[in-house]
Amino acid sequence: MKALVYLGPGRRAWQDAPIPAIREATDVIVRVDAVTICGTDLHILNGDVPAVQSGTTLGHEAVGTVFDAGAAVSGLAVGDKVLVSCISACGRCRFCRTGSFGQCLGGGGWVLGHRIDGTQAEYVRVPFADTSTYPLPDGVADENALMLADILPTSYEVGVLKGRVGPGSTVVVVGAGPIGLAAITAARLFSPNRIIAIDPAQSRLDAARRFGADTVLGADGGASRTVTDLTGGLGADVAIEAVGVPETFELCTRLVRPGGHVANVGVHGRPATLHLEDLWDRNVTITTGLVDTYSTPTLLSLIATGRLDTSPFITHRFALDEMEEAYSVFSHPQDTGALKVVLSRR
Amino acid sequence: MKALVYLGPGRRAWQDAPIPAIREATDVIVRVDAVTICGTDLHILNGDVPAVQSGTTLGHEAVGTVFDAGAAVSGLAVGDKVLVSCISACGRCRFCRTGSFGQCLGGGGWVLGHRIDGTQAEYVRVPFADTSTYPLPDGVADENALMLADILPTSYEVGVLKGRVGPGSTVVVVGAGPIGLAAITAARLFSPNRIIAIDPAQSRLDAARRFGADTVLGADGGASRTVTDLTGGLGADVAIEAVGVPETFELCTRLVRPGGHVANVGVHGRPATLHLEDLWDRNVTITTGLVDTYSTPTLLSLIATGRLDTSPFITHRFALDEMEEAYSVFSHPQDTGALKVVLSRR
Repeated sequence: MKALVYLGPGRRAWQDAPIPAIREATDVIVRVDAVTICGTDLHILNGDVPAVQSGTTLGHEAVGTVFDAGAAVSGLAVGDKVLVSCISACGRCRFCRTGSFGQCLGGGGWVLGHRIDGTQAEYVRVPFADTSTYPLPDGVADENALMLADILPTSYEVGVLKGRVGPGSTVVVVGAGPIGLAAITAARLFSPNRIIAIDPAQSRLDAARRFGADTVLGADGGASRTVTDLTGGLGADVAIEAVGVPETFELCTRLVRPGGHVANVGVHGRPATLHLEDLWDRNVTITTGLVDTYSTPTLLSLIATGRLDTSPFITHRFALDEMEEAYSVFSHPQDTGALKVVLSRR
Repeated sequence: MKALVYLGPGRRAWQDAPIPAIREATDVIVRVDAVTICGTDLHILNGDVPAVQSGTTLGHEAVGTVFDAGAAVSGLAVGDKVLVSCISACGRCRFCRTGSFGQCLGGGGWVLGHRIDGTQAEYVRVPFADTSTYPLPDGVADENALMLADILPTSYEVGVLKGRVGPGSTVVVVGAGPIGLAAITAARLFSPNRIIAIDPAQSRLDAARRFGADTVLGADGGASRTVTDLTGGLGADVAIEAVGVPETFELCTRLVRPGGHVANVGVHGRPATLHLEDLWDRNVTITTGLVDTYSTPTLLSLIATGRLDTSPFITHRFALDEMEEAYSVFSHPQDTGALKVVLSRR
């Protein structure tokens, strides 16, 4: 088969690789029907994620068909259509047993395309298959379900639920890339009164409007003042950080009202300054998180009932063996307008 | 009457002052029967709280007897014994109407001994009396109730409740001064499995043991490793910051397990470093807060039923007109062993 293999910082290739085989009785082998590329894959290619060894197949998001199943797999059969989630879960450790699958201590968590070969291939081995895949409901298209492999549950769980978005909330989303747009999409499920998107790029603010932001603001110094003015001088109920740099995190802590929530979704590589001298008496809650994917069945059901439409995220479609071209398009969103690209078996 | 008046940084006097009079129909005048001194009063005297103007009577904690009541006061009568809380509440603003009295926008919040004359006097004017005082249940001694004017609800609400201490929790309390000891006391109400106290002073660690800490640790570099070892390598469920400097806050963020809570109680004057590069994927929740005192009736009931004993906090007792001596003892806890001092009308 072919697979997109990481060959060290700056190097990748769509090259021959052996079809994976069952190693543990809880594994399945999935034939990949649709796969996408994540910003995290670009970070890996930049050399920012040293845990990824050269020779690893990238990718942690896929929809596919069960091709082979280990002897201990009880909830899946060959031929079943499944969503392969970015989070694998042993299902047995103390964290899995409280739904914190992202923190799995039993060999799961984010492992696909990270510590083991991933989904950007014709076939992928998925460990702990019963607790790491989700059957697709009838009538849900592969590519729409694929958006639930990472960005939607991440924005929903780590941004919207941890941030306590609710009816009537004023929500600020800082960063209007795919994760920020997914946060806007997920926030709308809770009937907020106002969603404000902040981003330096006009093209992203245009996208934020299309996805449902009520107000869009550039990232200049005036954004904070505008949010204050729009909220009667108090600040937003919730600020969702969807970039991953200290400046945007610190902006979020300035944008929330007393009693408000800062939900960090961005992946950070550097420390931020926390202005406790301003925040200590403001009853602010700050949360961080890796997605657990406990919400994936809920989100699948919302697609099935038509209450959630993930198709606007998909800007480009390719055949699976156009992987190099898809990477090229996804790597240059400012030129291509790419949000999410989908590669499908044809 | 006499009052303890702030005369600018480093200067105070127990001096003559006019007996306060009703100004608003919602005021009461309370005759002070018992009053205490807070670490915050020492900060004011150091000049660290510039909002306090010279000439202000200090103090935000008292138990007393209603001496006069404005025409609009409906829940209190002359002669009633009341707890005067550190937080006054207009009862009508958006924050008061959700129980966030500490964030009151209507002229309340922490105002006594801060923006208006306080409780370290023979009489005090209490604004918004119906929503800023608490009747004392039968059988609750003045001095025991007095501990609920600030430190107990602060540690309970901002430390234990925001930190989500629960049955079986491992709780680390960093700082074993009065607020840290109150956090230990409040945490024990929830049957945690283990309370660990960290402080550089042996006398405070001895106090932490008396108040119910299971493990006490010095603040050297080994504390973090010991907490890791005691928690199976994961870290504590909850870390309560009860000091108010960047180093102890940062220590708390290193002590919690994935999914754990850092509850900041300390009053900070400088920013801290937040290591988001380590924390972004650990599902950590960080909270700050000024006490709201919504828990005060609950805590009073716990004293009345014998489930909460605040008397161990009281190390020194004085007559009201021994105010200067009481300040002297409270200002030098390393020499006097003072936790809380009580001054009573005799």
